[in-house]
Amino acid sequence: MGRFVMVQENHRPMIGAPDKLFGVSSLAKQRIAEIGKEKVIDSTIGVLLDDDGELIVLSSVVDVLKDLAPKDYAAYAPISGIPAYLEAVKTAVFGSIPTKGYIEACYAPGGTGALRNAVSCYTKVGDSILTSDWHWSPYKMVAAEQERNLVTYTLFDENGTFNQASFAEKLNELLKVQDQVMVIINTPAHNPTGYTFTLEDWDKVNEVLLSVDPRKNIILVVDIAYLDFAGDADEYRQFMKKLFDYPENILPMYAFSASKGFTMYGMRCGALVCVAPTAEIAKEFKDATAVASRASWSNGNRCAMETIARIFNDDALKAKVTAEREAYVAMLRKRGAAFTEAANAVGLKACPFDAGFFITIPCENAEAVGKELQKYDIFAVVLGNGVRVSIASLSEEKCRMVPEKLVAAIKAVNG
Amino acid sequence: MGRFVMVQENHRPMIGAPDKLFGVSSLAKQRIAEIGKEKVIDSTIGVLLDDDGELIVLSSVVDVLKDLAPKDYAAYAPISGIPAYLEAVKTAVFGSIPTKGYIEACYAPGGTGALRNAVSCYTKVGDSILTSDWHWSPYKMVAAEQERNLVTYTLFDENGTFNQASFAEKLNELLKVQDQVMVIINTPAHNPTGYTFTLEDWDKVNEVLLSVDPRKNIILVVDIAYLDFAGDADEYRQFMKKLFDYPENILPMYAFSASKGFTMYGMRCGALVCVAPTAEIAKEFKDATAVASRASWSNGNRCAMETIARIFNDDALKAKVTAEREAYVAMLRKRGAAFTEAANAVGLKACPFDAGFFITIPCENAEAVGKELQKYDIFAVVLGNGVRVSIASLSEEKCRMVPEKLVAAIKAVNG
Repeated sequence: MGRFVMVQENHRPMIGAPDKLFGVSSLAKQRIAEIGKEKVIDSTIGVLLDDDGELIVLSSVVDVLKDLAPKDYAAYAPISGIPAYLEAVKTAVFGSIPTKGYIEACYAPGGTGALRNAVSCYTKVGDSILTSDWHWSPYKMVAAEQERNLVTYTLFDENGTFNQASFAEKLNELLKVQDQVMVIINTPAHNPTGYTFTLEDWDKVNEVLLSVDPRKNIILVVDIAYLDFAGDADEYRQFMKKLFDYPENILPMYAFSASKGFTMYGMRCGALVCVAPTAEIAKEFKDATAVASRASWSNGNRCAMETIARIFNDDALKAKVTAEREAYVAMLRKRGAAFTEAANAVGLKACPFDAGFFITIPCENAEAVGKELQKYDIFAVVLGNGVRVSIASLSEEKCRMVPEKLVAAIKAVNG
Repeated sequence: MGRFVMVQENHRPMIGAPDKLFGVSSLAKQRIAEIGKEKVIDSTIGVLLDDDGELIVLSSVVDVLKDLAPKDYAAYAPISGIPAYLEAVKTAVFGSIPTKGYIEACYAPGGTGALRNAVSCYTKVGDSILTSDWHWSPYKMVAAEQERNLVTYTLFDENGTFNQASFAEKLNELLKVQDQVMVIINTPAHNPTGYTFTLEDWDKVNEVLLSVDPRKNIILVVDIAYLDFAGDADEYRQFMKKLFDYPENILPMYAFSASKGFTMYGMRCGALVCVAPTAEIAKEFKDATAVASRASWSNGNRCAMETIARIFNDDALKAKVTAEREAYVAMLRKRGAAFTEAANAVGLKACPFDAGFFITIPCENAEAVGKELQKYDIFAVVLGNGVRVSIASLSEEKCRMVPEKLVAAIKAVNG
């Protein structure tokens, strides 16, 4: 007998585990109620807030959404998404980067849905999926839900750059027992570290991938959830150029999400996009993702798709959304710079940070450090081996205040 | 090697199969372009259309949706749904029926998502799930996507009523090899037949379920997608009274969908609702469905949930939505009556129809009958052993015209 009366655990040990994020977030809210939000630093929230702690919503996006016809909300969308959305997604992903190959897209409810479908369509029960040791924890759940395993390599070497040796070692280990391996890379502005794979890192990734026995397949899923909040649109898409010329045994995919870039978190709008080397591989992508979608959520949120489609079909509107977003990107980058500057000043060593919503400080006894930090009314999510600070949810001023207290908390716990 | 280059088939033979619905629907559209929509009967569409073939949208629902604050669209909802929505769903499901037990709900993207989570949380890879021979074909896909099998019993006996013997036989077969079996019953206004389980049918279902070895578990999932379009709200919920007093080895659940009842097809808003006999079983439902959701679509469509919550928290608003819907329910029932009357007049034998969007005519060589019907410019979806007519998409006048042509088509094919 399992540990449940009727629920089937099915390789999901996390069922019933305490929700750590919810726990620390509740403590933060409680403290805010006691002493006021000015005096509390709640860095648990993974969405972009303004300096007053209010959710930032791109008003240009909401204007489009509110302007739709009743049918645009009510009608079913086709299973794989409305065609205009699927076209728009290609532009949303690649921007002005010239594309090659057979590009196909399938709607998914957010980046999570896209990853879910990638796993369902390109791995088998019992397979292992490779990602880095620092990773967005739901990857493990997406894998476990479908009875796949998540295996990790060490992301950083001792110089704080991409650890090619570890990546190669773990990948080759998996290739010994699997004919096809899925690799998930979350970049740019990686959650939880804020690291961005450089063009040199990508060369190193490709060196490993191209050395794989061509009879074995690699499914390379790039999770670009934070792409539009990393920085310059063109600069941060340059890496994509390196993902077009693979041999036929390597299939690159992108997990696109409108959550952050279009502040449509609650609309659940994303897509899985593949760059197939042949028409055949493109067709099987379309066929398989359609079945996976049909069997999981059927069709998608039509008004969200319609909104994205309209934005990309109207240059003036697109420019308006971009301009509105760019101001917030600049704000977010300033917060990152403020944190980094303050960290350097007090000798706090964070994971190599480039951009995005989060900065992570690796430390021993992270759980205790997180607790200690709360004595300063600072609340952050504790990961396995570190503390994650959401700079997306803190003012520049608050970002500047956190490092000193983190040093103190680490010292108090670890000596 | 499988039949795909990189896609993993994983027990999904339907990947790449031709889309029959899409095929016949395209033919209908083509014919409409040629001779005009007045002369074509397109009964392939599974949504409620007005007599001019336009999608019916409850304007009272859209008004609420358009009136929301930017945050209501943009912000993430909690994984299991916003609390006000989960409360509203309980009322949406049970109406004025007094409830018992521990009732819990979890958001899902439509009825499909609810079924997906039920399968994920309460069955195992390789398990068989029981439903009737006439069933909504995506059930098979939902099961296959998670490597479960769908097994069927014969829904109707020779008198056109619930076939208790077949149900008992198939269920007991499965119980010989499984300790827990999921049963899916789609009622009222079953898709594709329009059959509604009577109170006597439910007594027969319960007789079988209560005779099961109490060491074996039954998960009884009632798919109520068409509940609000069946007829009188109270009358069609009476059966629920019979699903509260089960022993602890039987767990009833409802797959709720706002698609039809609130014409929110494209918003993807539904829920899985359980009536747990103990607090422990209720808690494990909450814990397991939260993980299944997190790993599949993360959180849900917040503005859709907010809309449902507001409707159920405002009596005047709720009355407005109900009144608007009731007029359409009456319209739909008239269409059903028109079809039935015309069918009786020409001796056409349909599956026992009570209410809902569809009527199904069992016949041999259904594929050929469907083709023959197209000669009369009538387009309908062919199921394995019958032809499904969507009366939801046809005017009363057109409903009256179909039976005669069906008789002719069946005669032409089968003699």
